[in-house]
Order: sequence, then C-alpha cells, then structure tokens
Amino acid sequence: MAELVELGKRAREAARILNSLDTAAKQRGLRASADALVSEADRILEANAPDVEAARKRGVSAPLVDRLTLTKERIAAMAEGLRQVAELPDPIGAVMDHDVRPNGLQIEKVRAPFGVIGIIYESRPNVTADAFALTFMSGNAVILRGGSDAIGSNMAIVEVIRKALKSQDLPEDALQLVEDTSRETVREFMKLRGYLDLLIPRGGAGLIRSVVENAEVPVIETGVGNCHIYVDESADLRMALDIIDNAKTQRMGVCNAAESLVVHKGIAPEAVPLIRERLKAKEIEMRGDEASIALSEGILKASEEDFATEFLGPVLSIKVVDSLDEAIAHINHYSTGHSEAIITENKENAERFLREIDSACVYVNASTRFSDGFEFGFGAEIGISTQKFHARGPMGLEALTTYKYEIRGTGQVRG
Amino acid sequence: MAELVELGKRAREAARILNSLDTAAKQRGLRASADALVSEADRILEANAPDVEAARKRGVSAPLVDRLTLTKERIAAMAEGLRQVAELPDPIGAVMDHDVRPNGLQIEKVRAPFGVIGIIYESRPNVTADAFALTFMSGNAVILRGGSDAIGSNMAIVEVIRKALKSQDLPEDALQLVEDTSRETVREFMKLRGYLDLLIPRGGAGLIRSVVENAEVPVIETGVGNCHIYVDESADLRMALDIIDNAKTQRMGVCNAAESLVVHKGIAPEAVPLIRERLKAKEIEMRGDEASIALSEGILKASEEDFATEFLGPVLSIKVVDSLDEAIAHINHYSTGHSEAIITENKENAERFLREIDSACVYVNASTRFSDGFEFGFGAEIGISTQKFHARGPMGLEALTTYKYEIRGTGQVRG
Repeated sequence: MAELVELGKRAREAARILNSLDTAAKQRGLRASADALVSEADRILEANAPDVEAARKRGVSAPLVDRLTLTKERIAAMAEGLRQVAELPDPIGAVMDHDVRPNGLQIEKVRAPFGVIGIIYESRPNVTADAFALTFMSGNAVILRGGSDAIGSNMAIVEVIRKALKSQDLPEDALQLVEDTSRETVREFMKLRGYLDLLIPRGGAGLIRSVVENAEVPVIETGVGNCHIYVDESADLRMALDIIDNAKTQRMGVCNAAESLVVHKGIAPEAVPLIRERLKAKEIEMRGDEASIALSEGILKASEEDFATEFLGPVLSIKVVDSLDEAIAHINHYSTGHSEAIITENKENAERFLREIDSACVYVNASTRFSDGFEFGFGAEIGISTQKFHARGPMGLEALTTYKYEIRGTGQVRG
Repeated sequence: MAELVELGKRAREAARILNSLDTAAKQRGLRASADALVSEADRILEANAPDVEAARKRGVSAPLVDRLTLTKERIAAMAEGLRQVAELPDPIGAVMDHDVRPNGLQIEKVRAPFGVIGIIYESRPNVTADAFALTFMSGNAVILRGGSDAIGSNMAIVEVIRKALKSQDLPEDALQLVEDTSRETVREFMKLRGYLDLLIPRGGAGLIRSVVENAEVPVIETGVGNCHIYVDESADLRMALDIIDNAKTQRMGVCNAAESLVVHKGIAPEAVPLIRERLKAKEIEMRGDEASIALSEGILKASEEDFATEFLGPVLSIKVVDSLDEAIAHINHYSTGHSEAIITENKENAERFLREIDSACVYVNASTRFSDGFEFGFGAEIGISTQKFHARGPMGLEALTTYKYEIRGTGQVRG
C-alpha cells in the first residue's frame, strides 16, 4: 500500500502541473511520445517477446496471443494514435455556460481535469499508449494497472513515454504503471481514496464486477453489452435482416454486438424463418422462446439465463412479443444499458422506443455496432459507459473532465 | 429490506411513467400539489405539533425547534416553492449535442431522467416538498428518508402531495417516504442497488460521511464547506474586510460561510490587525499561526485541526503565507472543495487562483456566500456538490438528469 500511496502522491503533483499546461504543451508531449515509440520500437519489441513467449507456453489461445503481440507496424499505429489525440480540441478551459447575475457577478462554468485517473485493463499493450494519450490531453495524470501477461511490454512503453515527457520538461509522473500485478495490489489500488479521482476498468464482465464491488473511489462501469434488436410489426424486413446480420456477425467478441432479438408477433411468422435462414448460413446458434421455436426449425429452447447473457460469440437469443410495450419492458429488464435498436417504419413507435428504452445508445433503423467513440465522431474513446452517473455511452476526452464555477466579482457581498 | 424493495419497485414503475410525461403534465402535478398543501394546511399543522412538542421535551435547542416548526406562512412558502419549480425550463428531452455522421446517422445527445432518486435528510420538513418538486420536474421518482424528529410532519406532507398527484391521474409513487426511521433501515436504504439510481444526503458532515462510507449506489456528496478567503498582496483592503465580514458573519451555520483566512505576508502587517478589529466587534474568535499572532493581539494559537475544521459558528482560522503558491497549496490541502475566494487587484494572480484551486466554486473579489443555486440563477437547488464526479457546486434540475444518445438511421450497418 505504501508504494501505491507513493505513486498516488507523485501523480497528484504531476496533475497539479498538468492542470496549468496549455494546449501546445500537451500536444508537444504527445508528439514527443509518439516519436519516441517509433525510435525505440526495437526496445519495445524486445520487451514484448518474453510476454508473448510466456503466454504461448501457458497455452493461451491464439487470438489472445495475437492481441498481446507487438510488431513495428502496431507500434507505429500506437504512435499515430497519440498524434491523432494531439489534434483533438483541448477540452480543458472550455466555457460550458456563463451568466452575468443582476449583482454583476460573472459566473462561468469551465471544464477542468479530474486530477488523477486510474485505469485497470487486461492484456493488450496498445491500451497503455491509448489511455495515456486521452488522460494526458484532458489534463489528467494517469496510473495504469495492466494485466500481468503484458507487464514487460507495458513497462517498456511506459518507460519510453516517460523519458519523452522528461525530455520536453513535462512531468514524467503524468504516466505511471503499477508494476506489481498481484491480486492484492490491484484490490488496494481500487481503494486509493484521496489519490484516485476516478477509476476506469476496461475488460471483461468479471473485471468490471470486481472493480464495482471493491472500489472505494468513483468508478465508471464500461463495456458489458447485452444488446437487443427489436423487429417492430412495421419493420422493413430486408433492412431488419441486414442490420441483424451486421450487428450479430460483423465482429462477435465486442460489446456493441447484438446478443438478443425481440420480434413482434405480427411480423414474426414471416421474419423468424428468414432470420434463422440468414444466421444459419453464418453458423449462429439461436435460442428462443416457444413462440419462436414454433415458427422455425433449428431454434433451441432458451433458458431464462440466455436472455440475460452477453454471449460474445456465435449465439443469439430470440423472443416473440405481443406488443411494443412488452418489447420495451423485456429489453429494459434484461439489457445491460449499452445499446439497443428498433427496426420500424412507424415513426411513433420509433419515438417511444427512443424515449422509453433506458440505455446509453438507442437506435432506430441502424446497427448497434455504431456505439463507438470513433463512429460517433469523438476522435478517440476511453471506453463505453454503461452507467448513468457522470458519463454514459462512448466516452471521449470530455468524459475525463469535470467542471468548476469561476466567479469574477468587484467586491460583491451577500445581502 | 423487503419493504424497501417494495418501495423501490413502486418507484421504478412510477419512474417509467414520469419519463413519458410532457412538461404540462409535470407542471399540473406540481401546481395541484401546491394547492393541496395550502388547502390541507390545518392537517399538516396538526401533524407537525407533536413533532415540535416531542423535540421540546427532549430539550432540543431553540434554533432546531424553530427549523422543525411549521406555520401557515411556512406552508404557503413551501407551496410557492412548488409553483416556482413548475415555471423552470423542463430539462428532459433537451438536445445537448447533435451531429450527422458521414454515413447519414443522426446522433443526438438528449437529457433524460435518472429514474429513481433517494434523498436522506435531517429535521426540516420543508425539504420534503422541495425535494419532491425538483425530482418530479426532472422526471424522476423520489424516495425520501427524513429525520425521525419530523416524521409526523413528513408523513402528512407526503400524503397530501400523493393525493394531489392521484387526483390528476399522475403516479402517486413518484413520491414515497421511508416511514421507518431506524438506523438499520437507513443503512439498508443506502444499499438498494437496482432500485436507487442516485442517492443524495443533505445534512451535516456526520450524515454525509456515513452515506459515503456505507452506500452501494451512486452518491453525490453535498455541502461540507471549509471555505477559504485568500487576501493577496495586492488586495483592496477595504474590499477584503467587507468580503471577509460578509462571508464569515452574514450567516454562520451554512456551508458557504468562510471558515479560514489566508493572508499574504506583504499585506499581513496592515491587514491582520484590521481584520481582527472588524471581527472582534462581531464576537468572532480567531485562531492563527505564529505569524498572525505576532501581528495582532487576541488571536489564539491554531491547531493543525483548526485549519481543517468547518466551524459553522463564530470561529475563524488564519494563516500568513509567503506567496500565492503557498496559499494555493495550503487551500488545496485543507479545503473541502466547496468555495474559495481570492481578494486581489492583480489579474494574473486572479487567473492562477481560478485555475489552480481545485474547488467547485472559485471566486475573485466576491463573497463565498454566493455559492447557492438561487444566487447562480438556477431557480432551485437540491444541494451543493463537493465532489468532482457527475455534478459539482450548486445543483439545480440538470444535476438530477443523465443523458442518452438517440441515433436515427435509414438502415446503416457497419462496414
């Protein structure tokens, strides 16, 4: 714990300096870091090799080994990411609201950094550079706790960036890494009150749950997506098939992929067999309620749990409903508050769905796969919030800020 | 716990309906409630009398008995409060941001209610009506847990408002009261995950701390204010005296009153004796560091704890510093992040103070007493947040909302 407090103190001091930096200084830091990643690529690759080797030896699956593996091209892409974030509008100091009161007080609501942000993530080492870029540009110091799989790679990346910051007379403690990746240390990290202003877990449902349950600092829950597509009675069936296909199969292991279909009974006799046919060709297993099973061969019986599951793979649940009301109630009950879509030609139903579905991103006639900071035009993304508090949906630079009221007077006192 | 869950379920259902109400319906509910409070004033007074009587018997202090006591005029003021909130702009449905993406997707960021809000407060029964007005107008259901002192009064007020809502075909469960005021029940209330989207404690530092430590739902910390005034070397001394006097003495038991002075050594020899003289006349005790004691008779020695204390009474701490840097570091160390002021004629120092002080409200040449939703022009206030997460400073209707992204497409799928 003493070592974590030491990291916290250094981050706090770096945050103080970061809060005073202008945009140009932050851009300079990001560009110098990008250059350093490219020029020190060999050293980073050298540090990455033992991580990859160890993962192979432990029998880690091929896709996970691939996620962990760095190449010159991937390091160049990391550097390019830093340069792109440097081009984004600096959120800090932006006046969000202003008012001059009758007594002459000038009140401005101004965007300000949080201070120190903690990020807990799993194996991909590129997150190390991404997370640094976003927190640095938003004026925050960051303490990263990456997975043990990638510890050698992460240490090298962090060292290269810290050296680059130092060479620019910028505070190197803007980026620090928790090098002890033990479970006890990560639990203590979550309780670093007074040092962490915000903690963001990035990873699977297990990691998120553990952080939400154990943290004693403010947390933003991210990324668990049991996303629904509702096919309304009035849906354009061809559009529905294209969107379902895209949302389910374009990339299956991601949080904005569809996991559950809800179909209005008025269109189900036509829609369900066509959906089944389309997805069968992509080897997607369907698990449905009795009404859907009665409408098409090859649909397995869904358990209660299936409706609540983020499969992240080739499985999809399906339920037939009597009404839009039932669809909304079902979705609000089982969804994780991430992204849901209605396919409809009925404008009134679309508006009701938009208003009544209690999720971060609600779509009419589009794929849930668009829930993404880049697709939303934010230019960057630190994760997708599934909570309602502070930030919701894809989070760009602004989600990493708070605000303060700056009040300028000429001697006003309260009467 | 089963009873709390029952309240939670009813609130959740009411929230679903509230989310669909238009502005006129919410105004109708607030106005009908205001009318009912006035027409049922006798019944409310009848319920208030035993609360007041019991408090007197327990030997509660006169100011607290006064806070608890209702009169026809005070009930009329409560009703007027409801009518005023009904006139405020409805935050729900407001488009905070919008974008049309190159692929034609229309993305709108739209203000939405949280759902169900819990509020824990102490003795004043007028908070019952205030809290209902703000949560109702922002489309949220509320579950109130008032103090045991005011339980009879609160039950009567809640019953009158619920009946008024019902008479308008509006969901009476938009307002519910936890009638069991035991400590065990309030602890369980803080853990009502899945039912409370947000919990706001309003009251003293002990209540706030207990909620922050025990809650398992999102909390907004409110109101603890160890507010500082920094007298810069270049200060207009007459202005400084007026502001210090106002901030310390105009109302002492409130969170935005000044509790601590920081004085630059360049102006201290002149300023400290004058401050002491001004505050002595108002019977304010001053506790200072050695440098301030050396500059004026009658200043007691401050302990480390004095600098960290929200006195809420006729005591003020004072410290002399060598520089603006030292002043900022001292304030950021001891403040509770509520409100701080600099008195200065130096624009550069003012801007540094505004940027570097990490508090919700930072003032130049004005009294900290202005930190208030009404003074800020919000037309209402649910409390003053001292945290950086979600809401900061005085909180009006918008602080009781979240947002969602509504995305309208024409069949877009991700490539």
